[in-house]
Amino acid sequence: MSDDISRRLATFVATARQQDLPATVQHDAKRAILNMFAAGFGGCRDAAADAMIKVITPFSGTPKAHVIGRSERLDAASAAWVNAAIANVLDFDDTHLATVIHPTSPIAPALLAFAEMRSDAGKPIAGADLLHAFALGVEVTCRIGNAISPGHYNRGWHITGTCGVLGAAAAMSRLLQLDAERTLWALGNAATQAAGLVETLGFHAKSLNPANAARGGMLAALLAEAGLSGPPRPIEGQRGFLKVLADKVEPSRLAMGLGETWELSLNALKPYPCGVVLHPVIDACLDLRAKPGFDVAQIERVAVRGNSLLKARADRQVTTGREAQVCLSHTVAVSLLLGRAGPPEYTDALVNDPAIRQIANRVVMVVDDTIPVEAAVVEATFQGGAKLQIHVPNARGSLGRPMTEAEVEAKLADQARLNVPGHDVRRLADSVWGLDRAPDAAIAIRHAAAK
Amino acid sequence: MSDDISRRLATFVATARQQDLPATVQHDAKRAILNMFAAGFGGCRDAAADAMIKVITPFSGTPKAHVIGRSERLDAASAAWVNAAIANVLDFDDTHLATVIHPTSPIAPALLAFAEMRSDAGKPIAGADLLHAFALGVEVTCRIGNAISPGHYNRGWHITGTCGVLGAAAAMSRLLQLDAERTLWALGNAATQAAGLVETLGFHAKSLNPANAARGGMLAALLAEAGLSGPPRPIEGQRGFLKVLADKVEPSRLAMGLGETWELSLNALKPYPCGVVLHPVIDACLDLRAKPGFDVAQIERVAVRGNSLLKARADRQVTTGREAQVCLSHTVAVSLLLGRAGPPEYTDALVNDPAIRQIANRVVMVVDDTIPVEAAVVEATFQGGAKLQIHVPNARGSLGRPMTEAEVEAKLADQARLNVPGHDVRRLADSVWGLDRAPDAAIAIRHAAAK
Repeated sequence: MSDDISRRLATFVATARQQDLPATVQHDAKRAILNMFAAGFGGCRDAAADAMIKVITPFSGTPKAHVIGRSERLDAASAAWVNAAIANVLDFDDTHLATVIHPTSPIAPALLAFAEMRSDAGKPIAGADLLHAFALGVEVTCRIGNAISPGHYNRGWHITGTCGVLGAAAAMSRLLQLDAERTLWALGNAATQAAGLVETLGFHAKSLNPANAARGGMLAALLAEAGLSGPPRPIEGQRGFLKVLADKVEPSRLAMGLGETWELSLNALKPYPCGVVLHPVIDACLDLRAKPGFDVAQIERVAVRGNSLLKARADRQVTTGREAQVCLSHTVAVSLLLGRAGPPEYTDALVNDPAIRQIANRVVMVVDDTIPVEAAVVEATFQGGAKLQIHVPNARGSLGRPMTEAEVEAKLADQARLNVPGHDVRRLADSVWGLDRAPDAAIAIRHAAAK
Repeated sequence: MSDDISRRLATFVATARQQDLPATVQHDAKRAILNMFAAGFGGCRDAAADAMIKVITPFSGTPKAHVIGRSERLDAASAAWVNAAIANVLDFDDTHLATVIHPTSPIAPALLAFAEMRSDAGKPIAGADLLHAFALGVEVTCRIGNAISPGHYNRGWHITGTCGVLGAAAAMSRLLQLDAERTLWALGNAATQAAGLVETLGFHAKSLNPANAARGGMLAALLAEAGLSGPPRPIEGQRGFLKVLADKVEPSRLAMGLGETWELSLNALKPYPCGVVLHPVIDACLDLRAKPGFDVAQIERVAVRGNSLLKARADRQVTTGREAQVCLSHTVAVSLLLGRAGPPEYTDALVNDPAIRQIANRVVMVVDDTIPVEAAVVEATFQGGAKLQIHVPNARGSLGRPMTEAEVEAKLADQARLNVPGHDVRRLADSVWGLDRAPDAAIAIRHAAAK
């Protein structure tokens, strides 16, 4: 099954017919891209983005390509690099739940930057072509991720980077209309760039992982087009991606149902910029807060019942805003006290705020594995013994209760308000929803940049 | 020993005193750099270099930085990328024998390109500073390589790429005069970029490994300078470089004798553009050919006695010039028939030439592990039964018989003659030998480019 997977994936990417892409999957592609812009508006003023733009500018070619939420212009490869970092920096971008890959950040920025190049050259790329290439890229990224999860991430590979570069190369190969042979070369050029350590999570350095995946994947395909050939089995070969970067591979996940099922359908958008395990807890806290009898000043204890994964990933003491994105007690405290859990609620200052700390210190976690990961029960006990309880069976943003289009647009508007005040988010949203009919896909990224 | 190795290495790089660099090691640095230009002259017209230059040019910033043996100019980061590929493409660059790392290609191009930037900005970098930074970078690269060899390469990691990016970042940090903390960040920014698959060897794609190591290491340090912070233990952390990219680590190799021993002293320069295991065989064939009674037309059999590593690495059938760089029978045939084993002897056409094939088919390998890797015995049997034998105890270029300065200069001249005819190799060699006294280190790379 996997002994010719490189060629099978390359052939699929090169020959898939656009009319075979289900309309629902094309729509999921638009949702993912609009959500990327929302996440990017949240992240575009991060210190990592500032440093990356500062460093890359002296090396940048003709500055025409747009940067999400920023006024700087860069060459297209540098823009892909910076935009991927901006879109992912808060971990507020989409999550392919089975693998914890953030698939859009390493792929869409490369395609959009290349669309700008082609638009500037008078040979625009149709929006429908870009959406199709994007879906194919996500498919490659997530299928490889499926085959090596959970061992690959658990070993310490930042899977968004390692698998993302392959998907970016695949998607770019499709936009370049490379044949199967050159698409195979592009996969080889990408596989040998696969990188990214989990050790960097929580530090600026992690932004290099999606950034290099986007730029590296873009160049991998352009190099293949220019004749830079690769090995025949870059993914499954004896010294190829799977053997080197994974200890256990489930080969059936690579090609089974290729072209029939779509991983984009299993991709979740996040309403909150924190670990997905925390999302049902936030929903419960916000509902609790709206209940009659709720009085934050009277809280004696907050018991969170949830899956053991919630405990493993988020039951910890933290000192920084970035760490707090995976901290249960801080998340409960801001949700109950402030009624919000957006980027402004994950700052160093708030983590160390006495009022927040007071509530956080009263949070206890009760493991109950009859409760699935997307669910939680939060019970507050008040002075005098009164109790209020909320059970959330499906977190907002989970596959059972996906964010609505209106919620994605609201996320975009919220994040724009924080970092790109006055931005015309309506125009941006309309350009993304209309991508399938747009003669020039570059319109979306141009409308996402600041003036 | 290894539980604070990231900080120890960063502190060493940031605080090492230039006067503590032994003069012999400084001289080894110059030899390695001059040899890199020789290897680069051999590789500068490779198809991989053509494709890389073609693809990167539209993304390149102000084109001022020089490319080895070529007339194109690029921005400094792109020049570092292309020069590393050019220097390594033929595997004719130096080899740190204990690890098979080619240390100079991923490190020196970054330093030289940065020296050009600084020279253009009127703030030149002294040659002695560049040599010192280079030695420190090689030290970091090869010590990490020592600690994870041979398992890391055997698993399928192209160690020149994975370890090279760390050394390039270290060396650049030193040139930027980063403090220990920022040098540590640079190591983190580099560790998360560590990449390169052995699967790509023999294909154009492998050139991306040294190229990305050079550019990635350069940016890693510049990003650290600009405030992009990394984790405190990028190398030894639970999800850091060693845990993720190595299955077995010998921690004592990381810091023992740091500042007292120098890995540059264990770095070998190659007289021939093929696997080092073949070098004593070539020496023996060339000596054999000069013996009275030798007649290539009368050869019935050529028996090569050597170490089992020679058999494992080079006893194979091949069909392309690139593969022939690790092919015993082809190497014996060209050495005996043509009296040369340079880049022109490793082409597809010669591999399939009937006269070469005829000799190649008469080569047999006899394993004898009493013979070390740097030695070989070649015995030719002629029609009628006459025999001639040569024993080479130390291959030219081995640590026991290093290439002389004159031999390195001759290599430079030979390769220039092939690809950069009319180049002033004297001026280039003098500029490298004079680097320790040069007020502007950029002179070396400027003299290595074509007009």
